[in-house]
Amino acid sequence: MIGHPACPVEPWCLRATSLDLGVLAQFESLFALSNGHLGWRGTLDEGEPVGLPGAYLAGVFELRPLHQAEAGFGYPEAGQTIVGVTDGTLVRLTVDSEPFDVRRGVLHSHEQVLDLRAGTLRRTADWTSPAGRRVVVRSERLVSLTQRGLGAVCWSVQALDGPVRVVVQSELGVTAPPSAAGGDPRSAAGLTAPLVAQTHTVTDGGVRLLHRTRLSGLLVGAGTWHDVTGPPGTRTDVACTPDVGRTTVTATLAAGQQLGLTKLVAHAWSGTRSGAAVLDEVDAALVVAQGVGWDGLLSTQRTYLDDFWDRADVVLEGDDELQQAVRVALFHVLQAGARAESRAIGAKGLTGPGYDGHTFWDTEIFVLPVLDHVAPQAAEQALRWRHTTLPLARDRARVLGLAGAAFPWRTIRGEECSGYWPAGTAAFHIGADIAHAVLRYVRATGDTAFEATVGVDLVVETARLWASLGHHDGRGGFRIEGVTGPDEYSALVDNNLYTNLMAQQNLTAAAHLARAHPGRAAALGVTAEERTAWEAAAAAVVVPYDEGLGIHLQDDAFCDHERWDFAATPAEDYPLLLHHHYVELYRRQVVKQADLVLAMQLCSGAFTDEEKRRNVEYYEAITVRDSSLSAAPQAVLAAEVGHLELAYDYLAEASLVDLHDLQHNTRDGLHLAALAGCWTALVVGFGGMRDDGTTVSFTPRLPPGTTLLTFCVAIDGHHVKLDIIPARTRYTLLSGPPVTILDHGTPVVLDAGIPVHRPPAAARSLPAPQQPTGRAPVPRAPHRTQSQHRAGLHGGGDVERTHACAPRWPSPGR
Amino acid sequence: MIGHPACPVEPWCLRATSLDLGVLAQFESLFALSNGHLGWRGTLDEGEPVGLPGAYLAGVFELRPLHQAEAGFGYPEAGQTIVGVTDGTLVRLTVDSEPFDVRRGVLHSHEQVLDLRAGTLRRTADWTSPAGRRVVVRSERLVSLTQRGLGAVCWSVQALDGPVRVVVQSELGVTAPPSAAGGDPRSAAGLTAPLVAQTHTVTDGGVRLLHRTRLSGLLVGAGTWHDVTGPPGTRTDVACTPDVGRTTVTATLAAGQQLGLTKLVAHAWSGTRSGAAVLDEVDAALVVAQGVGWDGLLSTQRTYLDDFWDRADVVLEGDDELQQAVRVALFHVLQAGARAESRAIGAKGLTGPGYDGHTFWDTEIFVLPVLDHVAPQAAEQALRWRHTTLPLARDRARVLGLAGAAFPWRTIRGEECSGYWPAGTAAFHIGADIAHAVLRYVRATGDTAFEATVGVDLVVETARLWASLGHHDGRGGFRIEGVTGPDEYSALVDNNLYTNLMAQQNLTAAAHLARAHPGRAAALGVTAEERTAWEAAAAAVVVPYDEGLGIHLQDDAFCDHERWDFAATPAEDYPLLLHHHYVELYRRQVVKQADLVLAMQLCSGAFTDEEKRRNVEYYEAITVRDSSLSAAPQAVLAAEVGHLELAYDYLAEASLVDLHDLQHNTRDGLHLAALAGCWTALVVGFGGMRDDGTTVSFTPRLPPGTTLLTFCVAIDGHHVKLDIIPARTRYTLLSGPPVTILDHGTPVVLDAGIPVHRPPAAARSLPAPQQPTGRAPVPRAPHRTQSQHRAGLHGGGDVERTHACAPRWPSPGR
Repeated sequence: MIGHPACPVEPWCLRATSLDLGVLAQFESLFALSNGHLGWRGTLDEGEPVGLPGAYLAGVFELRPLHQAEAGFGYPEAGQTIVGVTDGTLVRLTVDSEPFDVRRGVLHSHEQVLDLRAGTLRRTADWTSPAGRRVVVRSERLVSLTQRGLGAVCWSVQALDGPVRVVVQSELGVTAPPSAAGGDPRSAAGLTAPLVAQTHTVTDGGVRLLHRTRLSGLLVGAGTWHDVTGPPGTRTDVACTPDVGRTTVTATLAAGQQLGLTKLVAHAWSGTRSGAAVLDEVDAALVVAQGVGWDGLLSTQRTYLDDFWDRADVVLEGDDELQQAVRVALFHVLQAGARAESRAIGAKGLTGPGYDGHTFWDTEIFVLPVLDHVAPQAAEQALRWRHTTLPLARDRARVLGLAGAAFPWRTIRGEECSGYWPAGTAAFHIGADIAHAVLRYVRATGDTAFEATVGVDLVVETARLWASLGHHDGRGGFRIEGVTGPDEYSALVDNNLYTNLMAQQNLTAAAHLARAHPGRAAALGVTAEERTAWEAAAAAVVVPYDEGLGIHLQDDAFCDHERWDFAATPAEDYPLLLHHHYVELYRRQVVKQADLVLAMQLCSGAFTDEEKRRNVEYYEAITVRDSSLSAAPQAVLAAEVGHLELAYDYLAEASLVDLHDLQHNTRDGLHLAALAGCWTALVVGFGGMRDDGTTVSFTPRLPPGTTLLTFCVAIDGHHVKLDIIPARTRYTLLSGPPVTILDHGTPVVLDAGIPVHRPPAAARSLPAPQQPTGRAPVPRAPHRTQSQHRAGLHGGGDVERTHACAPRWPSPGR
Repeated sequence: MIGHPACPVEPWCLRATSLDLGVLAQFESLFALSNGHLGWRGTLDEGEPVGLPGAYLAGVFELRPLHQAEAGFGYPEAGQTIVGVTDGTLVRLTVDSEPFDVRRGVLHSHEQVLDLRAGTLRRTADWTSPAGRRVVVRSERLVSLTQRGLGAVCWSVQALDGPVRVVVQSELGVTAPPSAAGGDPRSAAGLTAPLVAQTHTVTDGGVRLLHRTRLSGLLVGAGTWHDVTGPPGTRTDVACTPDVGRTTVTATLAAGQQLGLTKLVAHAWSGTRSGAAVLDEVDAALVVAQGVGWDGLLSTQRTYLDDFWDRADVVLEGDDELQQAVRVALFHVLQAGARAESRAIGAKGLTGPGYDGHTFWDTEIFVLPVLDHVAPQAAEQALRWRHTTLPLARDRARVLGLAGAAFPWRTIRGEECSGYWPAGTAAFHIGADIAHAVLRYVRATGDTAFEATVGVDLVVETARLWASLGHHDGRGGFRIEGVTGPDEYSALVDNNLYTNLMAQQNLTAAAHLARAHPGRAAALGVTAEERTAWEAAAAAVVVPYDEGLGIHLQDDAFCDHERWDFAATPAEDYPLLLHHHYVELYRRQVVKQADLVLAMQLCSGAFTDEEKRRNVEYYEAITVRDSSLSAAPQAVLAAEVGHLELAYDYLAEASLVDLHDLQHNTRDGLHLAALAGCWTALVVGFGGMRDDGTTVSFTPRLPPGTTLLTFCVAIDGHHVKLDIIPARTRYTLLSGPPVTILDHGTPVVLDAGIPVHRPPAAARSLPAPQQPTGRAPVPRAPHRTQSQHRAGLHGGGDVERTHACAPRWPSPGR
């Protein structure tokens, strides 16, 4: 973690120069490798010590009963929990009968490096055994971004003195699932032995294991292949039991001699195909990878990432720490989605078991709008996964007495898995969020084929939900009642502004798409009457506003409530949901996370500048950010209304959520939405990018004190690069036909290869709004260089900073 | 059940002239004997066949974990479930080696009689065994209303032909708990073997068993004593195992000869005393009862009930069925409370395991206001039980961030046991309900000593809750937000009118009592400022009213909601909570049970006559009565605004809830609140009794077509009897100093022994309001005599009636 003394600030790596067992699990999350299909936590090769072991396959879950103290109609009866699959990362080492264990003997040096351009995790350990034998263990792993079921490890041990007899046990096996956590609703449910062994086989170079998840009945296959290089006399044996396959290599190394192995690990799973078919897929993957070889895998990985960084890199000069944080964030966002392919992208990707591996609206509202620009095929695949779950969502809508599709609040396969319906089923905005993600994806990519099929289906069916959920009141308003918006410190409210505006967008888009694609719409049974009803509802959506206060209302009754007594709330009471009953939270003005503020980001045109300014001021004062989803939208709106210092603070909070373990649960996996939000805070916040559905506009500004910000965005499938320096913004269209954008409201025509320079915005200086007592973000500006950061962190002179690195409040919400 | 062909309509008995195994469990509930401390379901002596076995002791419960699919702060972690204790009703019989079982051989006749004046359950069975031996088995049981731990059985078998060898096994033992029910939230939680044997002893005449509840750790002792009379050669043996004590009597009976036994069964339990002390209490009870003897028990029981009926009887001439129903209801209400003594009165008393044996607001709002008049010491004891739980309620308030006391929505011992907080913890009105019950009790009894101690404590601590829960808005209104009122088809609303008016009453009373009892108030820390704050809050309580509709609002937003589509709701969708998700119910105008209508009953002075009329009309049309708590308040208000036929229909529905098994769950126990509501419908509804805290008033009217209604009520500890005939009402003060009441608004001074005659009210004729489609009550007027009833039930000519006896909709709410 950057906040850790062992982590230097570097532009293209995340490096730990020593091993701190106290934060092992956090580093395992940060060092996780994934391609969206397969995920390996950054565990030590030898398996122990370990924080949370874990190899995951997207979509592999176990069912668990959802007990309810009081039953209710339509409650889900089963939950879905991500389970660790057969883990192939393990390479144990014995040195003259002494197991290599960093907790024993002397660890002279230890380094791990997550290389953002190589796409690998490297490790070096220089160790003397308790018996006095010194060896250097080196490893490099990757999870292939081009071969979705494949991971690989290149491992070696070198004797510094000798001769020494080494035994290397390279395993593929089932690891114990994490135990159930206490009362924290955000950790994973505990499961007992979810993987049941089916077959196990020794093959040439490795093993094949086939397991079946106990209740969900998924077949999970895995296999290994090894290439061993060692001195003469090196011997390799392979053995297999139902749950563990082991390749054992023994050799005697003279001083300076080395024993190495390349280990390929392939995975496949299916809920429908046979075990034989699944194992054949494993074999096929191994054959391909053998042909490519370790060096080939490395170069393919780098080529993939070179291409990615070409489009995706964001340069921020003047804040080395955030420069690093932004790249780490983008790397993990890519890893979460790259090869997810028809499976859900979970809130933590495949970096840990937190939140049971579920996907939430986080994906559509926070992650996909970034992938749209940096890895559009990943965004497309995520939406196509949603589309595959339409039948389930239609069924769910019927159960709820609604038309169209009711997508689940949290799920892995598509069924609703929320155990607390006021903050689950009632959060109907998930439907509009999906529709929004469709619109954003199409606008960025120009993927009309997608729009005409998957897009129409998703937008129409979600619009139908709104049409049946809401109703026209006597005064013509279209009201949407009894719902829960993004802020989970309110629930079951009437006319949540975020929900209403997003539903309005959804209804309008459905009418538009049904007109644009009449064939597909007809196949869905859309009639002219239905289109008209959508338009009428959209036009009449109630937008709660208080004339007296001059602000929009989060919901009809929100400002009738008493304000939370922030001054009387001690720091240890945060996050409030772990210390106060919902019955207390719900009746007060206290906002867990950006709700109305997020509406101002996503439905920007529904508010005047002055309204935005007043709303930000009002809601800043009652928003406690007990969710990692909050800082980025607050950064965006703070930047828009002119509070650049504040926007910078929030940018940093989003960017450092895991690097500083701000939520105290990075051990369970990374906070993907917040990490994606760091891009959003820069591009949508400081870059001021907005898209009204017709034109993309920018209002570029730099974070205070920084000297350069560059990024690329996609417009209709073509990339526009912005370089922002204090003196000007340079726009460059990288390819495609000319495109017109707005810069600070002025139309600018961009032609490929011809940069356009635009003057900076006039500086605005507004008094910054106040946050609730004790909830102001950590000021960023004074700490933006590495040396200042170090001083702040470890020089002892900066109380604020130290507090930020070790906040007193335990694990807040997602 | 009166609705059953085996049940004749009789004034003072509930009789079943044959045995219908299809409704065995329902009859066990109806034939249950109880004194509020000990309850015996009306099971057959020989134990089998059985619907639900059950002997209960008030306050004996087992803990069970309350699993939550998603944890939350302040959720209760343990539930409490009533458990069957050692059952002493069992007397098995073997006739020439053939067990007496009504399902075998020939049952020539079978009769059970619950005698409302004797306070016993009598049974006669004339049976020929498969081997051809004919015997008559007779039994009579009682649960003593004067000795709270004591039950007794007088049992005999007579041989009609002989000689026949009979073996009688009289047992005291543990019965298996009921299995867990499916998805119906209203049945009991299943528990496995909650009673753990401690000691078992054979004594002179019987046995002693001591058990301990597995998790709640309560010691439960029971013992038997037998007096056997039989022909020479009769032999008695006693044996005991940890879970069963058995007294075996063998005899050979000549034709006409008889073997009889009197069995005394004593119970005691404690959560604090030793096993030895508990068993000593059992011994003591048996010694006393032995001295009294069976005949003495019978006569004591009758004396107790003579005294009860003197005060409590309600005469209704012209509707024999309801006459019987009212007395059955009053008998069971008495049984639930008579000797509860510092234990909770459950929603089903001790008649069955339904609702886990929990007490709800039912007790304070529906049951105690009846006991105030017919068994005031029982009402006092119930409130004293609440008082013992004040420390728990104070602790709970702290957890919820509130001052004062937060009483549990459902409990046995005092801890909150609700597993669904939006309809549990959020139903804060329970506090005001308790305060209301205190005020009612004191007004009826004049028990100033109670008021000055328990009364002050309860009213002050509940008022403190309101003062901290509500807040003054900018316009001076005192708002109470995020609460759930009586109607559970809405939840977490702002300014529920019932809650607000009841809180107002609570706050006003607290200020008054604090002034009247300054010493006690000072001990509670009440200051003048606090009193003033209560008065200010009470004066400013928001009372939602819609000028346009000219009606009060159930809550702020209620009439913004879309009306439920009743016309599109098929009959089988009721009760709605079993067929629709809360998310659908909560956002619609649909009322599960009287809410605002109940407020108009309890806070009568807050509404004008015209407002009441309009409110009744509006809310009748959207109230579906998916709860047995609804009919009585609807009867009261219908009577008040002049819909006497409708009031009569609702009176019948409340009265017949169990006799016709209208809710389809009488098997789990009786609906005490509805049964008590039958008194309320007559006295408060047709009698028009109101009490504004200063004066008691009446507006007597007769149910249409009936000829006489008489009842007694208590005013300040003195009884006033009303005889209402079409031509006049006669008021008689039975004792005490003169009292002034209002008759149809006219002050009338009553002096002891000097009846006052008053003319009848002017007849009003209003068009009856409409209920939701298919939810109108069964019309009562045409069926009020027994012969008409019979014709309706079994003559096949009356479709409406038949429908009422066998409604199509399964088990609605409580």
